[in-house]
Amino acid sequence: MPTTADPATRAALQQARRDYADLRDRKLSLDLSRGKPSPAQLDLAADLLSLPGDRYTAADGTDCRNYGAPLGLRELREIFSPLLDVPTDQLLAVGNSSLELMHDCVVHALLGTTLPGAQGRWVDEGRIAFLCPVPGYDRHFDLCERFGIDMIPVPLTETGPDMAVVEDLVRTDPRIKGIWCVPKYSNPSGTTYSDDTARRLAAMPTAADDFRVFWDNAYAVHHLTDEETEVADILTACAEAGHPDRAFVFGSTSKVTFGGAGVAFFGSSQANVDWLRRYSAKRSIGPDKVNQLRHVLFLKDADGVRRHMLRHREILRPKFDTVDRVFTEQLDGTGLADWTRPKGGYFITLNVLDGCAREIVRLASEAGIALTPAGATHPYREDPQDSVIRIAPTYPTADDVEQIAHAVTVCVRLAGYEKLAG
Amino acid sequence: MPTTADPATRAALQQARRDYADLRDRKLSLDLSRGKPSPAQLDLAADLLSLPGDRYTAADGTDCRNYGAPLGLRELREIFSPLLDVPTDQLLAVGNSSLELMHDCVVHALLGTTLPGAQGRWVDEGRIAFLCPVPGYDRHFDLCERFGIDMIPVPLTETGPDMAVVEDLVRTDPRIKGIWCVPKYSNPSGTTYSDDTARRLAAMPTAADDFRVFWDNAYAVHHLTDEETEVADILTACAEAGHPDRAFVFGSTSKVTFGGAGVAFFGSSQANVDWLRRYSAKRSIGPDKVNQLRHVLFLKDADGVRRHMLRHREILRPKFDTVDRVFTEQLDGTGLADWTRPKGGYFITLNVLDGCAREIVRLASEAGIALTPAGATHPYREDPQDSVIRIAPTYPTADDVEQIAHAVTVCVRLAGYEKLAG
Repeated sequence: MPTTADPATRAALQQARRDYADLRDRKLSLDLSRGKPSPAQLDLAADLLSLPGDRYTAADGTDCRNYGAPLGLRELREIFSPLLDVPTDQLLAVGNSSLELMHDCVVHALLGTTLPGAQGRWVDEGRIAFLCPVPGYDRHFDLCERFGIDMIPVPLTETGPDMAVVEDLVRTDPRIKGIWCVPKYSNPSGTTYSDDTARRLAAMPTAADDFRVFWDNAYAVHHLTDEETEVADILTACAEAGHPDRAFVFGSTSKVTFGGAGVAFFGSSQANVDWLRRYSAKRSIGPDKVNQLRHVLFLKDADGVRRHMLRHREILRPKFDTVDRVFTEQLDGTGLADWTRPKGGYFITLNVLDGCAREIVRLASEAGIALTPAGATHPYREDPQDSVIRIAPTYPTADDVEQIAHAVTVCVRLAGYEKLAG
Repeated sequence: MPTTADPATRAALQQARRDYADLRDRKLSLDLSRGKPSPAQLDLAADLLSLPGDRYTAADGTDCRNYGAPLGLRELREIFSPLLDVPTDQLLAVGNSSLELMHDCVVHALLGTTLPGAQGRWVDEGRIAFLCPVPGYDRHFDLCERFGIDMIPVPLTETGPDMAVVEDLVRTDPRIKGIWCVPKYSNPSGTTYSDDTARRLAAMPTAADDFRVFWDNAYAVHHLTDEETEVADILTACAEAGHPDRAFVFGSTSKVTFGGAGVAFFGSSQANVDWLRRYSAKRSIGPDKVNQLRHVLFLKDADGVRRHMLRHREILRPKFDTVDRVFTEQLDGTGLADWTRPKGGYFITLNVLDGCAREIVRLASEAGIALTPAGATHPYREDPQDSVIRIAPTYPTADDVEQIAHAVTVCVRLAGYEKLAG
């Protein structure tokens, strides 16, 4: 097939086509789409399956089996207080999912009149908006879409959201009520916000008096290297900047113990905690404290969590290394892609030539490899450059990760050289 | 002290005053306020504390430890399908609390556009209203109050809500979007709705096309006698009446296994189930399936639940009998009170002379006995006759129940004779 491309590109395209045909012939069926812990990681918490055993009483005498204790068990909150940088008194342990807590914070702000700083119910203010650093987490964006909250994308830099853009937008637009942040090992880029970014988020003037930073610290203890990255204490930063009620902190053990049967946390100023409790008390007569006690007995203390995460790291690090090695072997110097080498978290971001991401995901799918849909990293599932692919290497086995990574590079080469060959 | 009352009343008042002074001297500290299971009841499910043991896989191969399975485990839904009269495919098992599910159904109807039959979001329709059979459950009323939903009280008769009143209201007023129903062993009266009541709820014309029956079957299997009262299958009744989407069914094991660590259920038409799932999928990546598996292994099947409830009955029945015996001994023939003798559920309703309920609860509190606040059984915590007191005999020990019941009768006599003596 004659093209305008140079001979080297044409040769590379021919090779990519042969490799892709081989790949399809292998009739694989593999999934790299979601950031789920693998069975081997879940096995690390096997003791939870027979805990709490004959115990059912919390340190303060609470019978964990019965109703009540809306704050969650104090001893569990004490374990996660230093890990999430939230004073124990301002940290709630409720439910099995931090996403639920984010959802409910939006709901209670939409339907309640008492959010500190708010003039009334968000639902009565017409269309409101959230800032969405991109690439970002699709489930954050889905919450906005579900509630009709406009999404304004903001570029994510190596130090966090582009703060000049953020500051400019929130200073002038009172419709902007919040910003989604995954401050450490961000989904999917692995970015950790700098202290300066946190300080500016805390200090910036906002046109909306009830502006909130949704600080989803999902990967607080999820290191992949010896360099255990720390992120600023956002609640203290906000308090020092004179905006004590600005930040909502979220966390969970979904990727520490069990994805479906962990415990989740909300931390904030006392005023915000009282606000959330006021409404959540109408919804629930208390969290599952038996599961909380189970976690206390298993994790023991903050150092117990840190030790446990080292065991996750032993399983995860080789998978991330494999992806990097295969990508380097197959793509380095091609000019077709670059990718992140995260120091923690669950994802690698693969940046490909503009206009190629959707095609690469489609090619992979045809070859039996499920990737996260292109666009999922952006509001409205629309990546304007069509260039970002989220790679989630945690769930498959190490062998499968190698196969999948190799398959992805075949698809990257095929789509990339097709584009370059015109 | 001279009064206009007859000598017998005056003598009875003097005796009541002496008895109340004696009661206060005993400096009791006892609580009959909430419908909580007792520690002995919770002990019945002690096996749950070390389950699932080495199991973590559901019948369909789902790894219960990980994310996913938004419907809940099928084998758990199969157990509760016949108990709640909901086909397994239309029954969701999610979370630890049916109150949460009721809350979320209201939220999603307020904020979503796709409730079957709805013209749009409830929040855009101005003030809406729910019918509240009285006496009823304070947490239902709290949900309405929290969301600014007007509450219209409807008398609860011996066969359920006064259907002539209900039919008349919903036929003409499109603001009325729902009715709270505890159809079996109602909180607090113990009333079970007749088949005719269920049929009329299902069939009645409603001005609102998106009217919903919130069928909170909280006491579906909570019998206190050999006469195991059944209630109509509301979903079938609605479907047969041409209103397949009218009923939301709720249930939980909060009073079967653990108050705080049970499992909860939502059942409805397929259209309603799809509606709830569509929104709850934005909130959660799946319920705690390990706890669901735990319940499956412990309860085994519907007959296992029934057998387990017999053991609850053995603990609870003597407490209810004690209250009835003491009330009969102390109050029968006085004209000061009557009370219910429920065949199931968690409560006895004590009806006292008009204007006396608040005073009796106050007197009891001064004597160290915590009762449910008078008015809690009515919308806005306002019992217009001030005559209904909810008695919750489940939590205290059998000895304490006897003491408390006796103390309550002293307060009933004191307040009652004070009133009669003018």
